[in-house]
Amino acid sequence: MAHALRLGRRGMGQCWPNPAVGCVIVQGDHVVGRGWTQPGGRPHAETEALAMAGSAARGATAYVTLEPCSHHGQTPPCTDALIAAGIARVVAPIPDNDPRVSGQGFETLRKHGVQVTTGVGAEEALADHAGFFLRMSQGRPWVTLKLALSLDGRIATATGESRWITGPEARRAVHALRARHDAVMVGAGTARSDDPELTVRGFGPHRQPVRIVVSRLLDVPLMSKLARSAQEVPVWLCHGAEARAELKSAWDGLGARLLACPITAGRVDPHALLQALGAQGLTRVFCEGGGQLAASLLAADLVDELVVFSAGMMLGAEGHPGIGALGVETLAEAPCFALVDVKVAGGDTCHVWRRS
Amino acid sequence: MAHALRLGRRGMGQCWPNPAVGCVIVQGDHVVGRGWTQPGGRPHAETEALAMAGSAARGATAYVTLEPCSHHGQTPPCTDALIAAGIARVVAPIPDNDPRVSGQGFETLRKHGVQVTTGVGAEEALADHAGFFLRMSQGRPWVTLKLALSLDGRIATATGESRWITGPEARRAVHALRARHDAVMVGAGTARSDDPELTVRGFGPHRQPVRIVVSRLLDVPLMSKLARSAQEVPVWLCHGAEARAELKSAWDGLGARLLACPITAGRVDPHALLQALGAQGLTRVFCEGGGQLAASLLAADLVDELVVFSAGMMLGAEGHPGIGALGVETLAEAPCFALVDVKVAGGDTCHVWRRS
Repeated sequence: MAHALRLGRRGMGQCWPNPAVGCVIVQGDHVVGRGWTQPGGRPHAETEALAMAGSAARGATAYVTLEPCSHHGQTPPCTDALIAAGIARVVAPIPDNDPRVSGQGFETLRKHGVQVTTGVGAEEALADHAGFFLRMSQGRPWVTLKLALSLDGRIATATGESRWITGPEARRAVHALRARHDAVMVGAGTARSDDPELTVRGFGPHRQPVRIVVSRLLDVPLMSKLARSAQEVPVWLCHGAEARAELKSAWDGLGARLLACPITAGRVDPHALLQALGAQGLTRVFCEGGGQLAASLLAADLVDELVVFSAGMMLGAEGHPGIGALGVETLAEAPCFALVDVKVAGGDTCHVWRRS
Repeated sequence: MAHALRLGRRGMGQCWPNPAVGCVIVQGDHVVGRGWTQPGGRPHAETEALAMAGSAARGATAYVTLEPCSHHGQTPPCTDALIAAGIARVVAPIPDNDPRVSGQGFETLRKHGVQVTTGVGAEEALADHAGFFLRMSQGRPWVTLKLALSLDGRIATATGESRWITGPEARRAVHALRARHDAVMVGAGTARSDDPELTVRGFGPHRQPVRIVVSRLLDVPLMSKLARSAQEVPVWLCHGAEARAELKSAWDGLGARLLACPITAGRVDPHALLQALGAQGLTRVFCEGGGQLAASLLAADLVDELVVFSAGMMLGAEGHPGIGALGVETLAEAPCFALVDVKVAGGDTCHVWRRS
């Protein structure tokens, strides 16, 4: 199962709106098939592994990181393929929470004489499929918020200089994180001040994440790197109703997708924003700031995971804060996170926290 | 030598203005004596270890974490004691930089036929004695700055609530750090808002660190915990010339020591402050903020080590910043530190940085 989980993670960020599933087929002491959900979400992991196993699948055990699908979607159901291949036993940690599958995959398998074992690796599988599950249950993607901060929590000097606070190892780790998410998201302020590309670089050919800018008024330069590359890598702009029609048509002409969102308290409503992204099929969104967007998500309790890089640098109280105003008056009101991991990234520290 | 270094560290914060030295005497395969500089700075480590070894010291090897003293201070020189005991060989990592000793201790030993080996464990010994060496060479103590921050670098909410951002394990670690320093120092703002005791608690009977408040105008409440306990544990107040005479005499009456310091740019001059503390014999000072004092020390490049506790909490941009204004405009001007250690303290992270 550990092997299947590792394989499954290869599909993270690549196969939305489908879950990133891994599958290992074992015949006696031998692995005869391995697979994971392919870019774009098809073929499924089971199909890949069964194709590799061929006739060796007969009587074998299939380890799958999620309940095999039992419904006719854009591909025939995996349960049928497993049964047809003569798989004797399926080990899967957890049921799917897609209402079209939930429990019925296991039931179909059992009905056809396939032994089914569940629970093995359930905790890891729940974590790996958290984005897919959140979208199914709440309609929104998983949100990872990245912060690259000075030791005193700043993201730029008073004059706006921000390149680079963290070192090359931390920046490479950020690209690896982008690659594991369906989309990378920033606020309009960051898009204007940093003119970022938001692509995954340094990891070979890669399905790029969708690039999202949250901009109430669509005030992102039409000559920005994002605008100029919108034909090659998707750019989605989440804006309010007040965005000017000529800006909308200009961005449309550049190839960007426009998502109109309601405005709350002068900002794009964070709940509506994530619902809109979930409706587009996104399961995992990587937010890279800036301070206002991060604060808006935090205040709405919409940040599932925090990845904080701390650099050994002090910028002082005049520097730009990594998190904008939260309206927190007492410690009891403060958004809290539980430590998951802490490690070194070159000369910086990297700590990971999850909603507690 | 590792054993001697560990023993030496037991004296840290206890034996100022003397260095916290460790000594192990080995006869054949047996440790026959162990010692470390005792509270108050005397007896020295060598005296302790020789007393334990007795006649077994004859022909033995003494591992000492610093060159043995050769001058008549308040105790007779350790070189004489080692020679009189018949020690055959002394292993010491580094020479003392006290001009009364430097090199002469080794010379005296060699002159009396004692074999001397140096260099072993030099890096660790230099780190352990850094405060003593700094005071000898620059007249100021080593400064460790502690920060207990929310993930976004805040030390209190907008309304001033700060208890507790970090958890009990981090707070216990802070008490252990206090115990290893000669003094604990805070700014007047922290003394007023937190009314701290600044003592070491939870580690049994202990020589308490000196408690220092930096207060230009001496505006710290005369009913504060510090004021009320100044008879039991030393309180030193570093103030400017404008401090009112009646406040000075009130604090004097409470048993506090008053250290007048020059004022630069409206604040107690940080260089003069540390020179004054060095002149009083302090070798290691643990600064616990607040943001203004921390910024003043950082801007003057007077912070040698940073110990940062990060809690999984967000307080937002309205919260009180852990570091005040630094006057940093470009990243190149920012005070920088190199990562030394990163660990977990309960639910918080603890990272240690040194001047890079």
